[in-house]
Amino acid sequence: MSRKFNFSAGPAALPEEVLQQARDEMLDWHGLGLSIMEMSHRSEAFVSVASQAEQDLRDLMGIPDNYRVLFLQGGATSQFAMVPLNLMGDNGSADYINTGIWSKKAIQEGGRYGKVRLAASSEDLYFSRVPSQDELDLDASAAYVHYTPNETIGGLEFDYVPETGAVPLVADMSSTILSRPCDVSRFGLIYAGAQKNIGPAGLTVVIVRDDLLGKAAATTPAMFDYKVHADADSMNNTPPTFGWYLAGLVFQWLKRQGGVAAMETVNRRKAEKLYGFIDASDFYANPIEVGSRSWMNVPFTLADSRLDTRFLEQSEAAGLLNLQGHRSVGGMRASIYNAVPESAVDALIDFMRDFERRNG
Amino acid sequence: MSRKFNFSAGPAALPEEVLQQARDEMLDWHGLGLSIMEMSHRSEAFVSVASQAEQDLRDLMGIPDNYRVLFLQGGATSQFAMVPLNLMGDNGSADYINTGIWSKKAIQEGGRYGKVRLAASSEDLYFSRVPSQDELDLDASAAYVHYTPNETIGGLEFDYVPETGAVPLVADMSSTILSRPCDVSRFGLIYAGAQKNIGPAGLTVVIVRDDLLGKAAATTPAMFDYKVHADADSMNNTPPTFGWYLAGLVFQWLKRQGGVAAMETVNRRKAEKLYGFIDASDFYANPIEVGSRSWMNVPFTLADSRLDTRFLEQSEAAGLLNLQGHRSVGGMRASIYNAVPESAVDALIDFMRDFERRNG
Repeated sequence: MSRKFNFSAGPAALPEEVLQQARDEMLDWHGLGLSIMEMSHRSEAFVSVASQAEQDLRDLMGIPDNYRVLFLQGGATSQFAMVPLNLMGDNGSADYINTGIWSKKAIQEGGRYGKVRLAASSEDLYFSRVPSQDELDLDASAAYVHYTPNETIGGLEFDYVPETGAVPLVADMSSTILSRPCDVSRFGLIYAGAQKNIGPAGLTVVIVRDDLLGKAAATTPAMFDYKVHADADSMNNTPPTFGWYLAGLVFQWLKRQGGVAAMETVNRRKAEKLYGFIDASDFYANPIEVGSRSWMNVPFTLADSRLDTRFLEQSEAAGLLNLQGHRSVGGMRASIYNAVPESAVDALIDFMRDFERRNG
Repeated sequence: MSRKFNFSAGPAALPEEVLQQARDEMLDWHGLGLSIMEMSHRSEAFVSVASQAEQDLRDLMGIPDNYRVLFLQGGATSQFAMVPLNLMGDNGSADYINTGIWSKKAIQEGGRYGKVRLAASSEDLYFSRVPSQDELDLDASAAYVHYTPNETIGGLEFDYVPETGAVPLVADMSSTILSRPCDVSRFGLIYAGAQKNIGPAGLTVVIVRDDLLGKAAATTPAMFDYKVHADADSMNNTPPTFGWYLAGLVFQWLKRQGGVAAMETVNRRKAEKLYGFIDASDFYANPIEVGSRSWMNVPFTLADSRLDTRFLEQSEAAGLLNLQGHRSVGGMRASIYNAVPESAVDALIDFMRDFERRNG
């Protein structure tokens, strides 16, 4: 067996220690004689796993007591509907900030449930930077403000948390959650598909301030009502037990690394190394303004795009996997989430330097 | 490591061979240097796994070409809303057959989206049998007829497929799918949460006749619209990749066992043995009429319920896990899905005989 460096944007790399533990206890969890996947979600054993995962996430993120943590299904794409269905209110209006493909998906689905007002958009700048606080045109009567702290495809990221006064701030943190400290009390609701920084695909984490529960529109399916899930501790129906368990292993791994403050140090260093190398080269380029660059997803292009195929073939042969950019934008993209070690970034830079020398 | 016999109702036992394979390739899938969980759902490798799983399910069930197979999230509980949202039509009405707790959940959620008409109910018989075809009061103008072929909690099961003429038949097959042959062409739509006979929790399989697609109500969230998923081959957003993969391993295991015809033989024998033993005893009892008994979920009571706790403690000590009945009904329940081997049923009967001798 030979593990390679995996720069996939999602489903993405998981910590090797976590996979090893899941492997070792796959047929017999803690000597009980069955897999964690084969247990009732209401069994004492699974409930303890589930509760511990929630507590570890609360510890890692410093989640205040007046927030509920939900372990759901359906991905961020389901949240694009759940957020307006639960928070828009009757005849409501919400503010959205458009910074790229994921923002636009949220806006498109959100508009089906009420009025979606554009508080700011980077589209006329080809999504090369996020809007500043000054550029936000906020409606004080909005039901909420929705934004995407990190755009996985575009590779741009907010370097600040928008100030929205009394209006609840809603964030799609799928690709940036747990990558650094975050003041949860600034948000009304945070959601994240697990498959980037938390665990396997099929699990969605929602962190919601409790005063926002219980206001779902009458047409909301029960499974799309946050209160239904909060009242049942995310066990209104059978939750994705393996994903929840694996997320718990990731949270414990994060604690062993020193928590999100330690991850911030490593993630900053990884990003600075890679952007620093790209900026120093005429062969590679990144299109995002320096202050808006993503720490998690680093898109880059070659000066001569005819070399793209060769770059991808040779990087893969060198054990650097999944560097192809998203099909909508082309080029390359290195996703360097928590579970991608600094040694992977070092190996990537070495390869890029060598490739440039041979082809530049 | 010592695997025990697991009679959990769900999440339920998985074939040991499947768990072994998943374990062995957990860190390095087919020599690619990463886990199946760490791959993009759009990668060549994962798409081949996903397509093969669909094809194997089509082979196993003989699914006609004019049916789509969807791999979704959210469990049967999401289907309780998706079915009416997609099939009810404007101001529509649908017929539901009530045979127990899962039927009632479908009826309750369905009633939020249109008129739910009760075509038959076994409630006045304490759900001790399913209604016969003659007892079905069907509305020829109904949008569909919904029923629950097997009630996981009550332990009763239809021994026939209702004839509904031109009205599409919709079945919640969560706890009986793949346990024996089934003529899919009799159905408009079949859905099943995976965590009983297919794979891990967090995956839902939907088999839908293609003329029923594209009719969702305007208020339907995109993620609840079957057509959205069908058009995207279940990859409108990131699917639960590990569950899909594991389901594929289960389908291949089923093929190696000889398919659903072979499972039928084994499952019939398992059920006949266990019911035969219970019926021959005055110490144990099953409340369901013989023709309506579930092959998958066998509830039983002790003549003296004060012995329940002792029975559960001693059966667990004997390596027979999860025999406690559902919290809503009490008593015992042995779920004997495909992955529960005949030797487990033999061991259970041996234990029950011995327990009766010691306590009867």
